[in-house]
Order: sequence, then structure tokens, then C-alpha cells
Amino acid sequence: MSLPHPQLDRDGRLQHFLDMDGLSRETLTEILDTAETLAPVGERRVRTVPLLRGRTVANLFFENSTRTRTAFELAAKRLSADVLNIDLVSSSTAKGESLLDTLRVLEALQADMFVVRHPQSGAARFIARHAAPSVAVINGGDGQHAHPTQGLLDVFTIRRHKPDFTQLVVVLIGDIVHSRVARSDLAALSILGAAEIRVVGPRTLVPADVTALGGRFMPNLDEALVGADVIMGLRLQRERMQGAAVPSSGEFFRHYGLTRERLSLAKPDAIVMHPGPTNRGVEIAGDVADGPQSVILEQVTAGLAVRMAVMSMVLGNRAASNAA
Amino acid sequence: MSLPHPQLDRDGRLQHFLDMDGLSRETLTEILDTAETLAPVGERRVRTVPLLRGRTVANLFFENSTRTRTAFELAAKRLSADVLNIDLVSSSTAKGESLLDTLRVLEALQADMFVVRHPQSGAARFIARHAAPSVAVINGGDGQHAHPTQGLLDVFTIRRHKPDFTQLVVVLIGDIVHSRVARSDLAALSILGAAEIRVVGPRTLVPADVTALGGRFMPNLDEALVGADVIMGLRLQRERMQGAAVPSSGEFFRHYGLTRERLSLAKPDAIVMHPGPTNRGVEIAGDVADGPQSVILEQVTAGLAVRMAVMSMVLGNRAASNAA
Amino acid sequence: MSLPHPQLDRDGRLQHFLDMDGLSRETLTEILDTAETLAPVGERRVRTVPLLRGRTVANLFFENSTRTRTAFELAAKRLSADVLNIDLVSSSTAKGESLLDTLRVLEALQADMFVVRHPQSGAARFIARHAAPSVAVINGGDGQHAHPTQGLLDVFTIRRHKPDFTQLVVVLIGDIVHSRVARSDLAALSILGAAEIRVVGPRTLVPADVTALGGRFMPNLDEALVGADVIMGLRLQRERMQGAAVPSSGEFFRHYGLTRERLSLAKPDAIVMHPGPTNRGVEIAGDVADGPQSVILEQVTAGLAVRMAVMSMVLGNRAASNAA
Repeated sequence: MSLPHPQLDRDGRLQHFLDMDGLSRETLTEILDTAETLAPVGERRVRTVPLLRGRTVANLFFENSTRTRTAFELAAKRLSADVLNIDLVSSSTAKGESLLDTLRVLEALQADMFVVRHPQSGAARFIARHAAPSVAVINGGDGQHAHPTQGLLDVFTIRRHKPDFTQLVVVLIGDIVHSRVARSDLAALSILGAAEIRVVGPRTLVPADVTALGGRFMPNLDEALVGADVIMGLRLQRERMQGAAVPSSGEFFRHYGLTRERLSLAKPDAIVMHPGPTNRGVEIAGDVADGPQSVILEQVTAGLAVRMAVMSMVLGNRAASNAA
Repeated sequence: MSLPHPQLDRDGRLQHFLDMDGLSRETLTEILDTAETLAPVGERRVRTVPLLRGRTVANLFFENSTRTRTAFELAAKRLSADVLNIDLVSSSTAKGESLLDTLRVLEALQADMFVVRHPQSGAARFIARHAAPSVAVINGGDGQHAHPTQGLLDVFTIRRHKPDFTQLVVVLIGDIVHSRVARSDLAALSILGAAEIRVVGPRTLVPADVTALGGRFMPNLDEALVGADVIMGLRLQRERMQGAAVPSSGEFFRHYGLTRERLSLAKPDAIVMHPGPTNRGVEIAGDVADGPQSVILEQVTAGLAVRMAVMSMVLGNRAASNAA
Repeated sequence: MSLPHPQLDRDGRLQHFLDMDGLSRETLTEILDTAETLAPVGERRVRTVPLLRGRTVANLFFENSTRTRTAFELAAKRLSADVLNIDLVSSSTAKGESLLDTLRVLEALQADMFVVRHPQSGAARFIARHAAPSVAVINGGDGQHAHPTQGLLDVFTIRRHKPDFTQLVVVLIGDIVHSRVARSDLAALSILGAAEIRVVGPRTLVPADVTALGGRFMPNLDEALVGADVIMGLRLQRERMQGAAVPSSGEFFRHYGLTRERLSLAKPDAIVMHPGPTNRGVEIAGDVADGPQSVILEQVTAGLAVRMAVMSMVLGNRAASNAA
């Protein structure tokens, strides 16, 4: 077996969900459509469906993230799965156990799915490559590489407001080079055929190969905002603000902060996005984050639907492959 | 909308459960009656009912309390709810997220209920005031203000032994001024029409306005115990014992500790209560805590029934309000 | 009531599961047979059965062990129980609460079962002796005394490969004296009538009374391996390697490490076991741990089935006793 993309089977169906590599527009659209059918579950009085009843989902978090872990846990519970939260930040190597030994044990416990969060780029792929064939791996964010469910929820949210990607001008602002979110957004938007993805930020925080990633570097935010449909802020890690690459947070805001004045340069119906948590007064002004064009909280809700979609699809595809 | 009591809707039905303010004797009695109907669930072989099936309860604990968190988690599970435990002691502001941002995210995750424990007085009300209309807030203890489910479980336990509150002489002993439990007990007992609430403790640990709270200060425990039906010890925080306000724990016990000799001054069928955990040899002698008049463990069991009652009532009332 | 074995009722049925003391071959065989009937649940698409639906299992962990806690949590969830994880490492005595007070509170919360992990030998028995009659206690490992579910999963795994214990030559290698696993294995194998249990390790790490435990001390590993059917490595605690009792880990491996060359001295179909996590290059060579004769991961899977069996049996027996 030398499949080109470890997350797809021979027939191109998702077996894991690791990043956007090799995904077709059809596959992404199928995920988004599935998420649309699952979104109403969260609006109901009984917010569960039995799609994963009796299945075991293990959250393997090698990095703290209450927010992402909670979203995955809730998505799995809405699908009626049993969820194991395994805190590997503190416990994993306390007994000197290697990552592969930990995986083998969790497989022997007959988990159906690993949701992996890891500080190192490539960890999710590594785990998918070494996991037993019976286990599906979902990347919950690995280093600076990818955060594909965040990418999905972003395009899901965009599609609800702007269904035609081919007409879309998107502006991504801030620390692109260290951001797994930016990388997954660029990939998803490119696959879906976004007309233009403008990338704005200090030159030190924009990758040299941004064109290869589907983006166009623009040094000036005001110019980039003209004609924009979607404006996405990115989180500036506080530890980076102390480094040489970035000036003070005040200076960052002066050049790249999204204010009401700046927002008025975009199209009147432009939407404002941010993966959260926001640094108000650094990447975005508080009144813009809370303003009428902000869809930041819709993104959070969308995260449940897309995670439910991905989880049920990978397990469903595996059942289909095994039956074939 | 300028409702006098944030926890009640226009028709006086509970929408949140924050403290005893504005609750009528009828409302409290309705909660206690509901708790009586739910108490047998815990005695059954299958200890669950489907009242909150498919609903999401988020435990937001800004202060550690394994005991209270466990009681709420278990009450929610007995109602078949899905429970999210969100440890905000360590994680909340790790990324510099504000309380309101955290609330917004949890609302966007479509939680139906927040159970809030917070070190600051007023936190539960603040959260209820700022929460989305779809979310019910239950106060699991905020600063020195209120611990209303503890107040409820105390009057529930009393009522099982002494059904007529109008005949009741209650003695509250110890650190009243710092105790959210004492405040909620005083309020609940006053609403239910207790004949007399005697408050005993070092003058430095009894609030100046104890009369306004419905209590009567008595400096001497022996005198206060004469004719008592219910004797409630309160927990003395160890950190307070080092302060200037209180003498040593030995001296405290000499003046205010509930011993067998002292207990004999009360009515022969008086019951002994304590919110736990007890400091044996400080507030109470071990043989009294474990003795035949102690109902301390009944209080713990009662906590499940009253929490199940409050949780199902606030969500039921909201459904009724929305339908209206 | 002065029953000889606190874990058995008058009719010899399991009421708790604390250690191997007083268990007959019939009782152990009944547990293993029940585990065999439950093992296929883990292979199904829906990995749950409703045997403990509506029952409450509290994991009381006074010692960190993600691995054991996860296995018990998963076994309980597969039986459809509600699980409370109570972290007593950090929280228990934070408020100065005694162990017995904690037990009383958990009983008052109407838990059906305590799974106890504790650093002190005898803790599980102590808790079973003091627990309310309604609560079943399962020992999840106490000090150096016993880890009886590990003992069970080991004999379960052996029986699948070598059904006739009376023909069995077993070799136990390493730190026996500090190992609750070794003690439970020796007891279970003796009860089941194993032909010979050879115990190999530095004299300082083998108990003086090993013969009374059913083992035969052999100083030389190579000689002990001749004719062996089952070879069990034990975990060498890293903190012990610094002590005077043991040489360096390199020297340990030279004398007691299980290598491919050494393994060839055993019977060709001998199986290799280890409770995990393994220290590769200390107790066992990596290629042996991962080799065709290793059943180390089968042991992990067996742990689910035997824990499901024990949990459902003790609660079932209690229901039968109460009905009688």
C-alpha cells in the first residue's frame, strides 16, 4: 500500500483527518454538507444523536487546550460516543513510556478514535501512520503544521454567509508563520477556489512561500482591506511579542489591529473572524470583536457541527471499507 | 425588562438559582417537594431518570471543590444530562481570556446550564446577568455571599425531621461572617418561618447586621442550646485560626465546640448538622459528629435530591416560558 | 459476622475484590469464564452492555495512574455505569478531611462501587472493612500488597494460550519484593495449580518467604528459562535503581534482561508477558517486547474483560445476597 495521502483510502474516502493535503473540493464540500445536516442537533432540546453509540473516542492531549478539548468532547458526546480524556501533558512520560508504547496501549483498550493535540508539527501524521488500522486519527492541532478542524469551521462559517467561494476576497492578518490555523485556512480556501487570499502582517511573521500556500502578501493593511468579503484576525502569541520579530503589542495594533475605521474600508457586508481567544487591543478592537459584522462566536458553534461531521464520516467510511 | 429578582421570570418562576433573595415560601416549598419526589431515584437500582437527557451542563469551577463539583456532576448524571467539567482554576486565564469571553464561548457551545463556583461574592449573579437568555445559572458558592443549594439541602434535611418550621429553634454556631453557608441558611430558614434562629460565635465572627439577616446574636453557647431543635456547626477555615480574629483552635473548641455535654442542653430529639468537612475537636467533638443525633451524612444525600430538583425546575420553567 | 475472608459472603461469593486471599480455584475460574463471555463486547461495533446501567462507580485514586484509571473507567463505561473520577492525590486532605470522612461522604452520594488505588499496603482492605454494606470495593493496587485485577488479567491471558495450568512452568523475573503485581500473580497461579513458578532476580529484590508464596527462587536466569512456558518480566522502578539494592540498569539488563538469545532457552511456544510500561533495555529487549512471542498488548485488552467481569459479579452477588 503506497497511498499518496495517508488520510484517504483507495477510493479517496477519509480514513483520518490530519490536514488539508490531498483533499478535493468534493471531499471538503461533502464534509461541510454533512456538518449542515448535523448543525440542527445542537439547536434541539435533546442535543444528541446515536451515530457513535458504543464507540470509544480518546482525547490525547499532549498540550493543554481546555477550549479545543471541550469542543471535541462535546461533539463526541453529541454523537453518543464514550469519551476518555487522557491528559498526557503531565502523565505520559512520568513512567518513561514512549509515545508509541502509549499508542499501543490505547489501541489495546479498543479505542475507535484518537483526537490528538501535540506541540510538534507532524505528530498527528506520525500517529496515524503508526496507529493500528482499526483506529481513526483526528488532528486537533499539531505544532505549527495544521489545525484542520479549525480550517473547516472557518470555511463552514464563511459559506453560511458567502456561499460562492469563487467570488471571495479574504484577508488574513497577523502572525502567519507560526500559525497552524492560518495554514489550514489557506489550504481550505484554496481548495474551495477562493478568488483571492490576501496575507497581511510584519514581514518577519509571513512565510517566504506564502504564494505557494495560495496567498498574496500585502504589507499594508488598509490597502488589503479594500474590497474584502472576509477578514480573519489571528492570535498573536504573547510570548512572541517579547521577541525581536515583533514590536510591542501597541505598535502591532497601530499597524495591524482591526479597528472600526479600518473595517469601513472593506465591503459593507464583510464578516470579521478570529479563532479566539482574541487579544483585544492587539489584533482587534473590542468593539469590532463584539460588533455586528463579527461572526467569532458563530465560529465556535460551527466547530461542533464540523467535528461531529468529521468524526462520524471517518468512522462511517471505515465501516464501509471493512465491509467491502 | 427590569425584573426585581434576576433569578425569577415575570410569573415568579425560577430561571436561575443564585441565592435566596426574593424567593417566596411557596417557591422554596415547591423546590423541597420536588426534591422529595426525586430522592427515591437515588435509592433505586437504576439511579437515573431521563429529565435532562440530551442537555448539556457545564461545571464552571473557578475555585477547587471536589466535593461540591462531584455532587453537582452526580446530580446532573442522575438526570441523564451530559456534563462538562471545566477547570477554570488553572486554565481560564492561561491565554488571557476574560470571564465574559469564556462565557460567550461556552454559550456558543450550546450549554444549557452553568454551575458556577467562584471565590468572589456576586460572581454568580454577574454571570447570570451577562449570560445568554438560553442559559440557566446555578450558584455553587460565590465568595462569602451565598451557597444556596447548601441552604436548600439543610432545610430539606430539617424538614424531614421537623416538618413544622414555625415551631423551630435553630442554633447556628461559629464563623458566620465569612460563611456563605450561614448566609443561605439564615435566609432559607427566615423565608420558611423558623420561630427563632440563634447565632453563636466570637463577636469578631458574627456580622453586625445579624438581626437584619433574621438571626439573634447570643454570646454564650450553653444558653443558646437550651430548647434547641436544630444545631448547625459551621466550618472554621484553618487559615482564619491564625488570624487575630480568632484564638487558637483549642480555645475555640472550649467556648464553641459542640460536645456531648453541651448537646444534652438542647431538646432530647435535637438534630446536629454541619456542612462538612468537619474539623473534629474544633467545631464539633468526634462522638457528636458520629453520634445518633447527627444528620451530617443525610445532608450529603439530600444535596443530590435538591440539586436534581433545582436543575430540572429551572430548565422546565425556561421551556414553559419559551413556549408561552 | 466473623467471616474468614472479608471479600466473600457466607456462601463464598465475591462481595469485594481485594486480593487473592481465600479465593478458590472455582471462584477464579468463574471470574475467568465470565471475562471470556464479556471479552467479545470489546470487539463489537457497539462496545457496551447494560449490566451496570444507572449504577455509580467512583474511582478513588490516592496515587496517580492514568493507565489503571483509564482501564477501570473504560470497563465501567462498557458496562453502562456512571463513572466519577475523584482525584484524591491533590484534593483529599486539602481541607484536612480524613479518609473515613471521605468514604462516608461518597457513600452518602450513593456510590455503588469504589475502585481504590492507594500507596499504602492494606488500604483497600481497610476501606472495604469500613465501607457501608451497600458499597463494593475493588482494589486497583495498594502499596506493595496486591494488584489483583492485574493478577487476573495475567492468568486470563495465560489461559488463552496455555489452558492447562497443571502443566505450566512460569518464570517471574526482577523486583519481586516491591511488586504488588508479582504477589498477585504468585497467588493466582498457585490457586490455579501452576506446576512450577520460578522466581529470578537479585537476592535483595526477592522476598525471603518466596517459597511460602508458592515460588522457587533461582539465582540464574538462563537456568530458570529452560523449559519455561510463560516468562513474566516485572517493572523495575527507576527510583530503586539508584539505591544500594540494585546495580545500574545496564548491569541489571546484563544479568536479568530478557533478550532474544535468552528467550531461545525457553520452550519454543513460550509466551512473554509484562505488566507495562516496559523499560526497554532494562527488564526486556525491545525486539522481545515487540516480538512474535510477546502477549504484552493482549494483557491490556484482557484487563478490560476481567475488570468488567469482576465489577458485574460483585454487584450481581450483592443483589443476590440482598434478595436472599
